[in-house]
Amino acid sequence: MLNSSLTGFMGCNASYEEAEIVLFGAPFDSTASFRPGTRFASRAMREASFGLETYSPYLDADLEDRAVFDAGDPELCIGDSALALGEIGRVSRQIFSDGKLPVLLGGEHLVTLGVVREAVKKYADLHIIHFDAHTDLREDYLGARLSHATVLRRCWELLGDGRIHQFGIRSGLKAEFEWSKDHTFLHRFGFEGLEQTVRSLSGQPVYLTVDLDVMDPSVFPGTGTPEPGGVTFLELMTAVRTVAQGCNLIGADLVELSPALDQSGVSTIVACKLLRELLLELPHQKKNNI
Amino acid sequence: MLNSSLTGFMGCNASYEEAEIVLFGAPFDSTASFRPGTRFASRAMREASFGLETYSPYLDADLEDRAVFDAGDPELCIGDSALALGEIGRVSRQIFSDGKLPVLLGGEHLVTLGVVREAVKKYADLHIIHFDAHTDLREDYLGARLSHATVLRRCWELLGDGRIHQFGIRSGLKAEFEWSKDHTFLHRFGFEGLEQTVRSLSGQPVYLTVDLDVMDPSVFPGTGTPEPGGVTFLELMTAVRTVAQGCNLIGADLVELSPALDQSGVSTIVACKLLRELLLELPHQKKNNI
Amino acid sequence: MLNSSLTGFMGCNASYEEAEIVLFGAPFDSTASFRPGTRFASRAMREASFGLETYSPYLDADLEDRAVFDAGDPELCIGDSALALGEIGRVSRQIFSDGKLPVLLGGEHLVTLGVVREAVKKYADLHIIHFDAHTDLREDYLGARLSHATVLRRCWELLGDGRIHQFGIRSGLKAEFEWSKDHTFLHRFGFEGLEQTVRSLSGQPVYLTVDLDVMDPSVFPGTGTPEPGGVTFLELMTAVRTVAQGCNLIGADLVELSPALDQSGVSTIVACKLLRELLLELPHQKKNNI
Amino acid sequence: MLNSSLTGFMGCNASYEEAEIVLFGAPFDSTASFRPGTRFASRAMREASFGLETYSPYLDADLEDRAVFDAGDPELCIGDSALALGEIGRVSRQIFSDGKLPVLLGGEHLVTLGVVREAVKKYADLHIIHFDAHTDLREDYLGARLSHATVLRRCWELLGDGRIHQFGIRSGLKAEFEWSKDHTFLHRFGFEGLEQTVRSLSGQPVYLTVDLDVMDPSVFPGTGTPEPGGVTFLELMTAVRTVAQGCNLIGADLVELSPALDQSGVSTIVACKLLRELLLELPHQKKNNI
Amino acid sequence: MLNSSLTGFMGCNASYEEAEIVLFGAPFDSTASFRPGTRFASRAMREASFGLETYSPYLDADLEDRAVFDAGDPELCIGDSALALGEIGRVSRQIFSDGKLPVLLGGEHLVTLGVVREAVKKYADLHIIHFDAHTDLREDYLGARLSHATVLRRCWELLGDGRIHQFGIRSGLKAEFEWSKDHTFLHRFGFEGLEQTVRSLSGQPVYLTVDLDVMDPSVFPGTGTPEPGGVTFLELMTAVRTVAQGCNLIGADLVELSPALDQSGVSTIVACKLLRELLLELPHQKKNNI
Amino acid sequence: MLNSSLTGFMGCNASYEEAEIVLFGAPFDSTASFRPGTRFASRAMREASFGLETYSPYLDADLEDRAVFDAGDPELCIGDSALALGEIGRVSRQIFSDGKLPVLLGGEHLVTLGVVREAVKKYADLHIIHFDAHTDLREDYLGARLSHATVLRRCWELLGDGRIHQFGIRSGLKAEFEWSKDHTFLHRFGFEGLEQTVRSLSGQPVYLTVDLDVMDPSVFPGTGTPEPGGVTFLELMTAVRTVAQGCNLIGADLVELSPALDQSGVSTIVACKLLRELLLELPHQKKNNI
Repeated sequence: MLNSSLTGFMGCNASYEEAEIVLFGAPFDSTASFRPGTRFASRAMREASFGLETYSPYLDADLEDRAVFDAGDPELCIGDSALALGEIGRVSRQIFSDGKLPVLLGGEHLVTLGVVREAVKKYADLHIIHFDAHTDLREDYLGARLSHATVLRRCWELLGDGRIHQFGIRSGLKAEFEWSKDHTFLHRFGFEGLEQTVRSLSGQPVYLTVDLDVMDPSVFPGTGTPEPGGVTFLELMTAVRTVAQGCNLIGADLVELSPALDQSGVSTIVACKLLRELLLELPHQKKNNI
Repeated sequence: MLNSSLTGFMGCNASYEEAEIVLFGAPFDSTASFRPGTRFASRAMREASFGLETYSPYLDADLEDRAVFDAGDPELCIGDSALALGEIGRVSRQIFSDGKLPVLLGGEHLVTLGVVREAVKKYADLHIIHFDAHTDLREDYLGARLSHATVLRRCWELLGDGRIHQFGIRSGLKAEFEWSKDHTFLHRFGFEGLEQTVRSLSGQPVYLTVDLDVMDPSVFPGTGTPEPGGVTFLELMTAVRTVAQGCNLIGADLVELSPALDQSGVSTIVACKLLRELLLELPHQKKNNI
Repeated sequence: MLNSSLTGFMGCNASYEEAEIVLFGAPFDSTASFRPGTRFASRAMREASFGLETYSPYLDADLEDRAVFDAGDPELCIGDSALALGEIGRVSRQIFSDGKLPVLLGGEHLVTLGVVREAVKKYADLHIIHFDAHTDLREDYLGARLSHATVLRRCWELLGDGRIHQFGIRSGLKAEFEWSKDHTFLHRFGFEGLEQTVRSLSGQPVYLTVDLDVMDPSVFPGTGTPEPGGVTFLELMTAVRTVAQGCNLIGADLVELSPALDQSGVSTIVACKLLRELLLELPHQKKNNI
Repeated sequence: MLNSSLTGFMGCNASYEEAEIVLFGAPFDSTASFRPGTRFASRAMREASFGLETYSPYLDADLEDRAVFDAGDPELCIGDSALALGEIGRVSRQIFSDGKLPVLLGGEHLVTLGVVREAVKKYADLHIIHFDAHTDLREDYLGARLSHATVLRRCWELLGDGRIHQFGIRSGLKAEFEWSKDHTFLHRFGFEGLEQTVRSLSGQPVYLTVDLDVMDPSVFPGTGTPEPGGVTFLELMTAVRTVAQGCNLIGADLVELSPALDQSGVSTIVACKLLRELLLELPHQKKNNI
Repeated sequence: MLNSSLTGFMGCNASYEEAEIVLFGAPFDSTASFRPGTRFASRAMREASFGLETYSPYLDADLEDRAVFDAGDPELCIGDSALALGEIGRVSRQIFSDGKLPVLLGGEHLVTLGVVREAVKKYADLHIIHFDAHTDLREDYLGARLSHATVLRRCWELLGDGRIHQFGIRSGLKAEFEWSKDHTFLHRFGFEGLEQTVRSLSGQPVYLTVDLDVMDPSVFPGTGTPEPGGVTFLELMTAVRTVAQGCNLIGADLVELSPALDQSGVSTIVACKLLRELLLELPHQKKNNI
Repeated sequence: MLNSSLTGFMGCNASYEEAEIVLFGAPFDSTASFRPGTRFASRAMREASFGLETYSPYLDADLEDRAVFDAGDPELCIGDSALALGEIGRVSRQIFSDGKLPVLLGGEHLVTLGVVREAVKKYADLHIIHFDAHTDLREDYLGARLSHATVLRRCWELLGDGRIHQFGIRSGLKAEFEWSKDHTFLHRFGFEGLEQTVRSLSGQPVYLTVDLDVMDPSVFPGTGTPEPGGVTFLELMTAVRTVAQGCNLIGADLVELSPALDQSGVSTIVACKLLRELLLELPHQKKNNI
């Protein structure tokens, strides 16, 4: 008899039952305002991960030693944001209720809202650490309240003032920057202040959302709205580690990879490496805090 | 003093007042189920038309001799189909009420619904001639009723049985083909029967919707869901001419060009040539029938 | 609990036990003499098939009604042809011994040899029908006997004279064309003579190998060594049907799709459609003959 | 000691002295009005020819049996048409004066003028057979008299009325089509009338200029101004053969391949195959007529 | 009635009369010696700017608050450098004579000469600050005196010794570096010495020409002759600010973006962001000095 | 008479007899485990070098003043590693026996073994300095002992412990990192320790192998297995200079450029510039030590 060799992200070969972490994709990009394509990110990352090493020389740790289940991609309704978020919520709810930690692969940034809505039900005092080039704080976008450009504003409605910590921001409306002064902690251009933020959140539940366009387009061109002047891969990897080691992470996501925009494939590999490092840090964190 | 040299589609330099035909784009592709990108079609066509000839050796006629106004692209709400269709409807309503003929450049096929909703208000006995590789007759798509895959079904709800004439169809669910037997005239694979259809519609108002993927992907690869086994450029050009010369056309559209999927630019040029031929036929038709 | 949504080729959701047909990929292209890349074909086809319809309006049949298992891709040793062919043989042997019919997705054309070696053990009187632009009859290629350019010559060594029926051939060394006169039935340029060949093989076991570059590069540019002057998609689909309906097919393959060479994705979709038609024809054939 | 293995177009390994035909490239595209890039054509064809067969199954003849010298590409002054044409003229003059036959690889169509100026000095009664999608008969282009869009008009100034025979034409200004009625033989859309033309030119010196965009963009997308509705590869190959076998060809060119516009590489290979067929026909012709 | 929605660069919506700055494109690249394509830069920048923010968090300023008119692109004669420069001169003359400040978008670097010829008529004591990877100081290029490779040499003929200040230079002939020692101030590799230069030019009229290939190809791959070892986006943005704030700028240009060479679109966006920052600084400068 | 203008890498116009350095390509990539294509690197570098300057402003030296012969590419058997390495060995043996210095352009990294096998015959005390992102120290790769992933392990078998000095390494199996502790000097991530290594090797024969993926993919995306977190172009150029000036180099290679993966062409140009700098340093070194 033959077994199927169809597989998920590299090294994520735990069963759902034994897994501490559950990875899943959210192939949705209907509100992308410039160039869509992030719906292909999770599948492109699984495909590209096939040839990559599971061992990290940065951490001297191997993904084969972690218990991660890759649930694949739920089928999301392209073109209807409310239906798509509902389905992401359904998956997230299951993961949280089984005491596991969700890691979401976008998709556009709006998908984060699907997880956060569930997270906040379980963790009333939730904080969000947000790495991004863009503010994402609009009240609406051409009339639509559910949009990649409004996602953190929608999260703020759930969490309230002082719960969202933004880093790397270098693009947005003037009005968004003004609004943020009263409602979020917005750090421009880089990660200055991150260590202090992490210390201040000690013990509290934190969700980490990484819009990969926080990186400079030189190393990450494969995204819909690239912004020059961003952070390097090593700076982002270090920042993720700082958060993962210092906070009580209860979930995380990587969003806005648009594979076809980078014909060289580098952006997809950068996202895979970052995911590997994140997954390697997560269980360690989890064991410490739960 | 300097005047701006920013211009619309080649040869479309009439003012709105003097124009018989009004061209406008619909940069919307939020429900594209496979690969989005049609939102860039209208702008890509204007750009590529810059170097093309306005004269048609097929018709021995010149676009410079026609009165066409290019209204540009209204700003559509990406991610919210209802809002986007509303805006397309607003523009169409104005054009119809001013006694002009709208020609819409998609965008995905859903945008057709925005024009048809207005057309049916003015022309109660409207027929639709539909060139496409796909049936587009689903009741819903993953729960969404407004979708490129349902657009002709939504049109049918407005028009009723026996008003939609489909040609070139070679892909769809089995259930769609079954359903069509009672509700539309569906012609598989090519244009067989088109001349007879055109004769049967003599004098009645007709809207022509051309999903460019009715063409074989060999000459038109730049579309989200290409289907081999399609018609040639010359067959499509002839079919468009058959309709334009034989029917009382009250509006038309060309949809589903996705420029970035064809790096050679051929697909965009094919769409431009077809638009030129369509525009050259339209006023002739209009003068005869109104 | 969550189930994984990772899946194989569209509609191929039978278990191995219930399956009549077993699909598997051979990601190998080490001997490609011009531009490699066919190793990605099977995965690209699964990915692209996600959005395609399982229903064929050509046959009025649906892949959901067939019992096909997608075994994924065995891990092949890139760079060592003998090891890779051994692994393909191991999988094929299992399928044949379980009374099922293998359908192989290349990879380069050399992978065919891995299946044929096993097929000839089970079916001593095996014939091969070979659709291709190239002869593939060299004795060796720069010293290597195992090569895409020699694969039919190696098959001939197993089968002997008069067992290989070649169609569509339009490129090769003069010496290959000369050699073929005494050893194979080589039909130049198209499918002339195919129906007669099929009739002559009535009741005998036949393996069908389709090098997709038999098609004209206008509709199938995504291949390493494209040859203008080829057959159309509809001609190839008809020819495959002729073989599947008239012969006792005991296995088949589609090879030489190189997805990255066709940035539009059309070639991958063409291959998927052809595979759908082939799979739809096969069980019918199988039920008749076994 | 080591010899260099740097080589020219496949099978063109005669020395200059023994060669009957001299191939050379003209890497020039300064007047390209839409998308430049033909300057890379000759080098791309040499590179791609490396893996192609020198044997033609269409003609049962082999390029290895012909005496062709590949002179490489003279260094042309990009940006100054007069200087570039002067250098092409210098090379052509040498070839004509040595009693050999020049075959030029463009570059844009203007380069043809460099050879024709020399040809007409040697052959006062020269005719030109011109395969193209475009008329190329403008008096000037935005003020420039030397342009790809004016090249046949410049040739007409050298040859006079009734000497230029155009086939495949399907694009141009209305004024060009009008002008042609009194000065050239312009055949629209295809090769109708070609055999009659060839018979009428029996014994007279003929130069063949092939703008490769005469082909349909489905099989030849790699050109700056593609025109749908063109001829197939086999139709063009047959037409070239008709001319080569029926006329006294004294030179020829293939122009307007723009390799980077066709990422699949098919267009470059199509041009190589056509060049192989042309080169195979030429010496045969030459031996008959000189 | 419908108004056209065709628009220029983001936020440049002043009328010509009220504008302080006039933006225009120069779609010309006939002398590009390696890979042409810069003719598409100005249109690509307008198109890409559609989705970008007009607000700069670097300057806390918004382009909506500036008075800029986008004049579009004059029609330039491709293939004749003298005619093209004449037309650029005609536009520049008008802008200077109306007391406005021209900002030119290339096109290749030669277009700078069209503006400088007019600038030097108005400002006899003009200095040029030149950011570039290349010297551009050749006497001629393969015989042509008008070329992107000679443009600063032609400017020097108008201005004389000691008036051209070059930064970022890392490529050129040995002879150019030698020649520069007596005639220009050439600073290798980066912006060292820029602040001192700016101080030394206090109060004198300065034209700023930015060849975007001064940036490292990691962040700006979309240019014909990329040179590794360049400056970062932030370094260039800072250098432009240093010049704009410290000098009496009377005009400026950004040249050598070749959009199609960067399929990710990042290079075009980098150019747009730089243009936004430049435009935001200019009026401030202008108000101080005039 | 006409001479051929077909040429090698820029400025490499010495005859074999007068050359001190012999450049040759190794178009082989059969064992590439992820994305092949390096077989095209040497030809792409020659082509791209056509437009580049031979003068280095970094070194104030000109390649025209060096005696380098470009031998082109030997014809290697794609698909059979042993045959291909044999042919590379044959060429290397000739170069070493004629007292010249070989510089090899890959191809994949396995090709290095072909030169090293010959080098170690001539220089028994050979050391290797190895710049790479990957360890390349596997015992075998899916059963194959000859592979890009095992090449340094095969070299170690020839040289023994303590002879291989690795820099820039940031990817590999855990087992490879462990193994290296006893057998090679492995420096992670960058060039720390390089100067000390160079001093320690004073006077001993050294072969330098540069896997270009040691660079960060931001500036060198054109490689099969890009690894973020790499060194910059300037860091690599400096490191190469440190080795070339401080060691007795007896041969060198640049491998793993895969031109088609970087559509912008930047990676090929980066490799060309690095080769120019390497070639400019080598003769100086050679004159000192031999």
